[in-house]
Amino acid sequence: MSDVKDNSETVIVSRFDCSIDNLFLGVLCHAAFQDVNVMVIFGFGFLLAFLKRYGFSSTGFNLLIAALGVQWAVLVEGFLFHFSAGDMKISLHSILKAIISVTAVLISAGALLGKANPIQLIWMALVEVAAFSTSRWINVKFLKVEEHTSLMHVHIFGTYFGLAASWWLHRSSLSNRVEKEKSNPISDLFSMLGILFLWMFWPSFNSVLIMDVMQKRNAISNTYYAIAVSAVAAFALSALSSRNGKIRMVHIHHATLAGGVALGFSAPNIPCPWIAMILGLLASVISVLGSHCLQTYLNPVLKIHDSCGVHNTFGLPGLLGAIANVILFIIIKWASLSSLAYLALIEVASFSLTIAIGLGSGFITGQYGKALCKFFLIFSEHVLCDCITSAVTAVFPGLLPLLVPRYCADCSKNIHVGRGFAAAGNTVMGLPSVQH
Amino acid sequence: MSDVKDNSETVIVSRFDCSIDNLFLGVLCHAAFQDVNVMVIFGFGFLLAFLKRYGFSSTGFNLLIAALGVQWAVLVEGFLFHFSAGDMKISLHSILKAIISVTAVLISAGALLGKANPIQLIWMALVEVAAFSTSRWINVKFLKVEEHTSLMHVHIFGTYFGLAASWWLHRSSLSNRVEKEKSNPISDLFSMLGILFLWMFWPSFNSVLIMDVMQKRNAISNTYYAIAVSAVAAFALSALSSRNGKIRMVHIHHATLAGGVALGFSAPNIPCPWIAMILGLLASVISVLGSHCLQTYLNPVLKIHDSCGVHNTFGLPGLLGAIANVILFIIIKWASLSSLAYLALIEVASFSLTIAIGLGSGFITGQYGKALCKFFLIFSEHVLCDCITSAVTAVFPGLLPLLVPRYCADCSKNIHVGRGFAAAGNTVMGLPSVQH
Amino acid sequence: MSDVKDNSETVIVSRFDCSIDNLFLGVLCHAAFQDVNVMVIFGFGFLLAFLKRYGFSSTGFNLLIAALGVQWAVLVEGFLFHFSAGDMKISLHSILKAIISVTAVLISAGALLGKANPIQLIWMALVEVAAFSTSRWINVKFLKVEEHTSLMHVHIFGTYFGLAASWWLHRSSLSNRVEKEKSNPISDLFSMLGILFLWMFWPSFNSVLIMDVMQKRNAISNTYYAIAVSAVAAFALSALSSRNGKIRMVHIHHATLAGGVALGFSAPNIPCPWIAMILGLLASVISVLGSHCLQTYLNPVLKIHDSCGVHNTFGLPGLLGAIANVILFIIIKWASLSSLAYLALIEVASFSLTIAIGLGSGFITGQYGKALCKFFLIFSEHVLCDCITSAVTAVFPGLLPLLVPRYCADCSKNIHVGRGFAAAGNTVMGLPSVQH
Repeated sequence: MSDVKDNSETVIVSRFDCSIDNLFLGVLCHAAFQDVNVMVIFGFGFLLAFLKRYGFSSTGFNLLIAALGVQWAVLVEGFLFHFSAGDMKISLHSILKAIISVTAVLISAGALLGKANPIQLIWMALVEVAAFSTSRWINVKFLKVEEHTSLMHVHIFGTYFGLAASWWLHRSSLSNRVEKEKSNPISDLFSMLGILFLWMFWPSFNSVLIMDVMQKRNAISNTYYAIAVSAVAAFALSALSSRNGKIRMVHIHHATLAGGVALGFSAPNIPCPWIAMILGLLASVISVLGSHCLQTYLNPVLKIHDSCGVHNTFGLPGLLGAIANVILFIIIKWASLSSLAYLALIEVASFSLTIAIGLGSGFITGQYGKALCKFFLIFSEHVLCDCITSAVTAVFPGLLPLLVPRYCADCSKNIHVGRGFAAAGNTVMGLPSVQH
Repeated sequence: MSDVKDNSETVIVSRFDCSIDNLFLGVLCHAAFQDVNVMVIFGFGFLLAFLKRYGFSSTGFNLLIAALGVQWAVLVEGFLFHFSAGDMKISLHSILKAIISVTAVLISAGALLGKANPIQLIWMALVEVAAFSTSRWINVKFLKVEEHTSLMHVHIFGTYFGLAASWWLHRSSLSNRVEKEKSNPISDLFSMLGILFLWMFWPSFNSVLIMDVMQKRNAISNTYYAIAVSAVAAFALSALSSRNGKIRMVHIHHATLAGGVALGFSAPNIPCPWIAMILGLLASVISVLGSHCLQTYLNPVLKIHDSCGVHNTFGLPGLLGAIANVILFIIIKWASLSSLAYLALIEVASFSLTIAIGLGSGFITGQYGKALCKFFLIFSEHVLCDCITSAVTAVFPGLLPLLVPRYCADCSKNIHVGRGFAAAGNTVMGLPSVQH
Repeated sequence: MSDVKDNSETVIVSRFDCSIDNLFLGVLCHAAFQDVNVMVIFGFGFLLAFLKRYGFSSTGFNLLIAALGVQWAVLVEGFLFHFSAGDMKISLHSILKAIISVTAVLISAGALLGKANPIQLIWMALVEVAAFSTSRWINVKFLKVEEHTSLMHVHIFGTYFGLAASWWLHRSSLSNRVEKEKSNPISDLFSMLGILFLWMFWPSFNSVLIMDVMQKRNAISNTYYAIAVSAVAAFALSALSSRNGKIRMVHIHHATLAGGVALGFSAPNIPCPWIAMILGLLASVISVLGSHCLQTYLNPVLKIHDSCGVHNTFGLPGLLGAIANVILFIIIKWASLSSLAYLALIEVASFSLTIAIGLGSGFITGQYGKALCKFFLIFSEHVLCDCITSAVTAVFPGLLPLLVPRYCADCSKNIHVGRGFAAAGNTVMGLPSVQH
């Protein structure tokens, strides 16, 4: 019982003590915690619900990955950052950081939507959270990057991890799957739900980890300006760039949130709104351009299939934000620092490292994700003898079908089979055959 | 005017005075108040929107019942708890308690969805709020149960009230109504909206009434862990227990929230996260098992028809939580108390009493709910003379049709008539024939 | 760089300093800020999504107008109210006021839904924000109206502006467009989303600008009571007033929120809940009556076509609230003031002025909004030579189609052409032909 008591104290005491100041921060933290929670569980889930075939897959799997990922992230985080102290402190603040870390997985899942099955998604969640925490640990420990900045790398990490992983699941037939990737007015409205919730709460996302009240205010205002500009720009650019003046849903989808992503790093340090607004505009432009050019010309060449266009929504604006942060840093500190070039180099190294780890670990995860299913197939066919298999099947009728036939078929051939592809998405969730 | 003034002061002064501490609690209270408000008005409304035929009924009637119930609960509450003081204090805190009390009605409405007409639902809301407040008053007054615990009885009270009431509306033909109870991908997505909002804000629900800041933090964290585990478990169990590895929507619907319900009583007192997580897992398992076994085998025998499976979502996990609370209480207080058995017995008596009052009052309400419509039919046909009837009809053309023909037909025979059944649901709301 | 620094300080310092009190207000402000943000971006967007043809138009254009309007409102506000100080202070508080001002535009857009194209909506947003700020400036500067009251004029200003503007877009064929204005169960559910979010957060809307904590509490409670009563009344009146006891969606849509609108002015000053509840009931009755009588009999005579019935939802309850506020003011101050009649007259003058400016500026805006498109048509056809046109078209393929053919066709003849009407709405948003 004493062990239990100890644990209990670490849970309770870790973050909040009873003085007015900390209580105050606690409340502030809890309100913002809820905002971020809503963004991650609800916003991301419905953001990806724009394909009429994968509506429930995206929201359902999103909840599964987020709920699992948060628990795993708390553990990994505690292990990496607090292991030296001998015990692991779990508080509301560590859950908050875990939720933000999990965003990386949800972004990657957007790139793989409709291509990966739940087992692969869970495998990806476990590896990606660990890889992101490691990348963050290196950034904080060796490059002395601030905690807030290191967590804001989540957008670019998630994007490049997802793109690298999607390389393994790419099939030439994917480019013909136009039918599968259609949206309809209702799925677009559901997606709009997600976009609006992300849009509204993005200022909280960019400011939640900042402890200084002034900087927090600044981050909220700047993000609000940037994201307002990028929403307007998304509509304008979409109308201007299409041949008949129509607004294309895909642009709204990609560019509306670009401003918020771009402000991730620099929101608390931008001294005046105009800079934030220009950044928001640039992010929106880059996002629409990326949606036009990269998606059409580059992705087929690189054999990347980005189901939800996360590269345009999160990758490019995130890169823009990282570069803008370095430039801003140089401008602000121009006079005051002798070792400016060195410090700027550290900043560049920091996000380059994140991208490198993201690409590398994503590549490996994709490879093993494919191998995983094949392994289960071989394992259950050859290693397990029949009696064990049938005993297990008697208790859990769904275990073997879950692991073996369809999922592996999924990996090896369902992409070019229309039916199989659907299986990886909605059918797995039992939508067409919900049994009451 | 002086009377008005007095009232005004009770409204204003009752809860919040101007010292920093109380202001602080006020803010804390208001943010959490909004969370609970969102859960009850929005979350429950859309949670029950998963049947494609009753989408609007569930959200619309949910708002009607909640808005009416809150006003009634504030009155009943004030009458029961503050009557001795001579005046009734109405504050934001009493609205909050009223909102939580109304949850019982919304849960019961889930069991009756598609079987009761609006008049019956309103009747049920009025009786159930009064019965729950009375049960709570006995608990607080005589068994000395804490306010927070007594309000958390709301899940089990609502469930067993609803089940008892549904007994009266049960017809053998209900088991054949498979067609009526189908969901489709869009209604599932709407239901997912409700599930996600309940999931996200459940930590606020379990912690909002706790005044001690440490315990509040503890309750938030514990509930978060439990509900995260039960979401993951819901997906896993659903996939494992189905024959083809498919995830069944009905399991997600029932088991995702089970962890939050189970933690209702003990959230602030659980000393370490692992216990909360195990409770969340158990709640999810019980919920899925209940969905498999009870719904299929026991309910037809007991002549219970539980439209939305509230017994699995709220009833069983609530019972588990109540029992776990007693066990936890015994373990924690093992060494320190001499009269342990007596106190544990009180705890058991408390929730047994709640279930008993719930079942009893639900049974009576169901009986009179049926009689109510018949009474109106007889009353308007035989007692009222024609001239009064036509005078009333001239002013309110909708009054008589509302009370008499269809609704009573509803009670007496519409269950076995397909058309009539639909009438109790969507058609009443005018959905198929919205007149602009 | 020094200029930038200065700006930065005004952004940061303007509202929040570091003492506990102001920090406290800051937190309170931020939580309520989020509530209002959710109402305006999400609630209004989905409130107007009830027509099955214009679902995405309403949410998408709502975001566009709100994002653009907020930036413009911050500028206009700063120019009008802080110009004398020599510099413009931009803070979270000014964004909040801008968001509330933009509500006027969103209400007007509801009256014009399906009749105006995006260019006209943007034009309307720019003019209306400026007109409302001017009206507010006159109210605050010369009539010494409080800031909170002056901003709560937003409902009546938006309504009458929208009605006046819609006069210009009225066509006799509009009354035949029954087909276009149908809702279906799914669009009704989406609309319900918006209604519920507005309903839940209306107490925050009515209290966010009040600085006194007592009055804030009072405003929250009173608004909650009023809006609960009007929700119940909406259901009851709808069932009673229809011929077959059916609940008509259009009544729920109009009357549920009426209580919140009516309490806008007087929420902090109403001394006891019963007054608030009676006001909520009256507002609901007026709204349903308006929906029955005005919409059917008066609007065709006045050649007004109010797509979403904003006159019933916001206009009439707002008027009721303004009148009730004057009566309440007279009752409360009966004994204490000598110059009562004068002060009451100022109150009446204040909202009459707002309505007058709203009607006048709306009329002019509608007139020029029509002329605007014709101007672009003539300009691009006759003034620009071909080479410039083709050069511009090469860079922005969507520019000319956006401005010239369809939009102007839109103004001049698309109202009586079914196809063209749809073009102004969904088709413009590219919904039926989303191009991925």
